[in-house]
Amino acid sequence: MISVDAALAHLFSLTRPLGPETVPLREAAGRVLLHDAVARRDQPPFAASAMDGYAVQDAEVRPGARFTVVGEAAAGHRFDRAITPGEAVRIFTGAPIPDGADRIVIQEDVCVDGSSITLGDALDSKAYVRPAGADFRIGDRLPAPRTLTPQDIALLASMNIAEVVVSRRPVVALISTGDELVLPGEDPGPDQIIASNTFGLHALLTSAGARARILPIARDTRDHLKQVFALAADADLIVTIGGASVGDHDLVGDVAQSLGMEQSFYRIAMRPGKPLMAGRMGDAAMVGLPGNPVSAMVCGRIFLVPLIRAMLTLPAEPAPRETARLTAPLGPNGRREHYMRATVGPEGISSFDRQDSALLSVLQQANALLVRAVNDPAREAGEEVEFIRL
Amino acid sequence: MISVDAALAHLFSLTRPLGPETVPLREAAGRVLLHDAVARRDQPPFAASAMDGYAVQDAEVRPGARFTVVGEAAAGHRFDRAITPGEAVRIFTGAPIPDGADRIVIQEDVCVDGSSITLGDALDSKAYVRPAGADFRIGDRLPAPRTLTPQDIALLASMNIAEVVVSRRPVVALISTGDELVLPGEDPGPDQIIASNTFGLHALLTSAGARARILPIARDTRDHLKQVFALAADADLIVTIGGASVGDHDLVGDVAQSLGMEQSFYRIAMRPGKPLMAGRMGDAAMVGLPGNPVSAMVCGRIFLVPLIRAMLTLPAEPAPRETARLTAPLGPNGRREHYMRATVGPEGISSFDRQDSALLSVLQQANALLVRAVNDPAREAGEEVEFIRL
Repeated sequence: MISVDAALAHLFSLTRPLGPETVPLREAAGRVLLHDAVARRDQPPFAASAMDGYAVQDAEVRPGARFTVVGEAAAGHRFDRAITPGEAVRIFTGAPIPDGADRIVIQEDVCVDGSSITLGDALDSKAYVRPAGADFRIGDRLPAPRTLTPQDIALLASMNIAEVVVSRRPVVALISTGDELVLPGEDPGPDQIIASNTFGLHALLTSAGARARILPIARDTRDHLKQVFALAADADLIVTIGGASVGDHDLVGDVAQSLGMEQSFYRIAMRPGKPLMAGRMGDAAMVGLPGNPVSAMVCGRIFLVPLIRAMLTLPAEPAPRETARLTAPLGPNGRREHYMRATVGPEGISSFDRQDSALLSVLQQANALLVRAVNDPAREAGEEVEFIRL
Repeated sequence: MISVDAALAHLFSLTRPLGPETVPLREAAGRVLLHDAVARRDQPPFAASAMDGYAVQDAEVRPGARFTVVGEAAAGHRFDRAITPGEAVRIFTGAPIPDGADRIVIQEDVCVDGSSITLGDALDSKAYVRPAGADFRIGDRLPAPRTLTPQDIALLASMNIAEVVVSRRPVVALISTGDELVLPGEDPGPDQIIASNTFGLHALLTSAGARARILPIARDTRDHLKQVFALAADADLIVTIGGASVGDHDLVGDVAQSLGMEQSFYRIAMRPGKPLMAGRMGDAAMVGLPGNPVSAMVCGRIFLVPLIRAMLTLPAEPAPRETARLTAPLGPNGRREHYMRATVGPEGISSFDRQDSALLSVLQQANALLVRAVNDPAREAGEEVEFIRL
C-alpha cells in the first residue's frame, strides 16, 4: 500500500498544465489568470477630489476666508484653466483637481452667497486630494497564476483590461460502469440502483473549474465499455467509477489497457477507498475511482480536485487542511489514513458515528473530512485535529 | 444616520422570494432547493454485500468449514434462488444478498478448490451485509431551502430524483452612471476613468446566485438615464452605481423618481459608504450604490449579497461574521461602523494601513472586511475581532 501523498504525486505526473485561452473580462471571474495582467494606465489618471466641495489654494485656507467661485469641475469635466489666489472652483467627488489648487474644502464647511463662498470656523484639516497614481501606475501587475475574484475583476477593469489570458478549463469525461446502474428518473429493476457518483462528481469538478460531462453508463461488457471510452476522445481527464478493483467483474482496467492505457494500480492506505487505477490514455489522463458512492466522492475531493487545479496551472498540492478542536474523543486509527465524515463549526469538529462508506445520507450532512493519520493514537475532546473542508 | 442593520432591514422589505423553476439534476448544483426533495426508493433497495467474497449462512461459519459454490451474485445480477445449508454464492460488492444468506465471508478468508471453498483459520468477524434502507428510505427528505452542494446532488441522484424545484435566479441589471466613465478596452479621454464597479459587482452577484447583466453606461443626462433604465424592464433588482449622493450632478434619484420609484435615502453610519438610495420601481427593487469603487464593492458584499440570498428564499440575514485575533493593535473607531480591508489567515487578521475607499489595489489584496462597531475602543494585538470573508 502507498500513502495518499504518494498516490497524488503519481497522479500529478500524469497531467500537465493546459494551454491558455483569452476571455472577455466579464466572463473571467473564477477562471485562473495565466499571464500577469499589466495596468495600462495610472489610477487615478489625474489628481482627483475625494469629496464634494470647493477646490482652492491650501495656503489661503483659514476660518472666515472668502473666495470667488469661478467655475465648476465635475467627474468627467475638468475646469479648463488654472485658478489664482482668491478663486475657488466648485468640485465634485472624482473630478480632476484644477491646476493651481491643492486643497478641497468640503461643502459642509462653506457658506455660499451667490458666486462667493466664506469658510466656516471649524475646518476639516484634510486636503481631500487623491494624487495621480495613488491606486496603481502603468505597468503595475496582477501576478499569475491566480483564481480571479470579484475584487480582481474590479481592479482589472480599472486597469483598462478588457480581455484576460486564462487557463483553458480541463474537459473531464465521467463514466460510471456497471449493469446495476440506471440514470435518475429511470425505472430501476429489482437488482438495480441509481447512478449517483457521476452526478456528484460533475458538480464537484465543475465547481473546481472543470468542464465536466457525464457520459452514458457503461455496461459490464468489453464492447460497450469501448464504445463509451470512444465518446471521451476529446477529454483531458477520463474518470471511470466502479469496475476498477480486483473483482472478477471489473473489466475497466482490461479494456482501458486494450485501448493503450499505460496502467498503474495503487492500493492506497486510506479509508474510505479502494484500489485506484490511473494512467495515460492517448492525450488524456485516466483515473479509475471505486464505485462506492462515498469513496468516489471522497477520492474526488482528495485526488481529482487537486488534479484539476494542477491542470489549471495552480500549484500541484494536496487539498488544503485546516485545524479545529474535537468536540468528542476519538479512538485510535489503524493502518490507513482515515477521512472521516464530520461537521465543523464555531464549536469545533465532530465526526459522525456511522462511517460506512455506502452512506450518502451521512456524507450529505458532512461539511468536512476529519483526517486521521496512519496509526494516529486516541484523541481527547478539545485536542486539535486536521480537516479538509467539503 | 441609520445603522447598517436598519438599512439592510429596509432593503429586505423591498424584495420578496422569487418563484420556483424546475431544473435537471445535473444543472442544480449551487441552486437553492425550494421544495423538499423526497426519496423515491430505499437505499440500498435490497440487502447488499459490502465486500467481494462468498454469501453463506452465518450459523455455519467457523474456521475450516467447507461450502459448495452454487452460483454467483454480481451488482445488478441477483442469484435466483435461496441458498441452503452447505451452499455458498460467489458475491461481489453491491450485489443483492441471496435469500437464505446473512453473512459475507470476504475472499481473503477463503481457499478456493474448484467449486468448493474452505474457510481460513482467522476469520473477519463482520457480516459485511448492508441492510435494505440503511442509507435512506422512501419518503426521507432533503429539506428546503438550501443551496445544493455536490454531496446533495449525489444523494438526490441516488434517491432517483431527476429534476428539482429551485428558486428562480434573480435578474440583476447593473447600471453605472457618469460622464467620466468608459468601458474597459476603450480609449478614455483625459478626464475619464474606466468603469470597474459593474464588472466587480457582476462577478460578486453572479457568484451569489444572481443572473447579472451589465447595461450600457448611463450618461449624466435625464434622457440617457431614462433610456438605460428602460433596458432594465425585466430585472428583479436594478443597481445603479454613482450619481446617487446629494451632489448637484447626481441625477439618478430624480430620474428614478420620475419613473415612479418610491424612493428612500439612507445615510448609513458606515465606512466606506455614502448615502444609499433604495426603493421599488415597478416590479423591481432598486438600490443606488456610491460610485467610489471600494464603497460599491463593500456595499455589494454587505447589502446586495444578502438581498440576493433573500430573493433566493434563503434566510434574510446579514453577511455571516467570523472571528479572528488581531496581529497588530487598532486605534479607536468613530461614529460609523467601519469595514476595514484586511487579510485573514491562520496567524490572525491584519488590516491594511491604507483604508482610502478609492484604492481598488488594496481591496484586491484583501480577503476579509474587519468589522469595527460604532465607537469600538482601541484594541490590542491578540484581541478577537469580527470579520466578513470576501
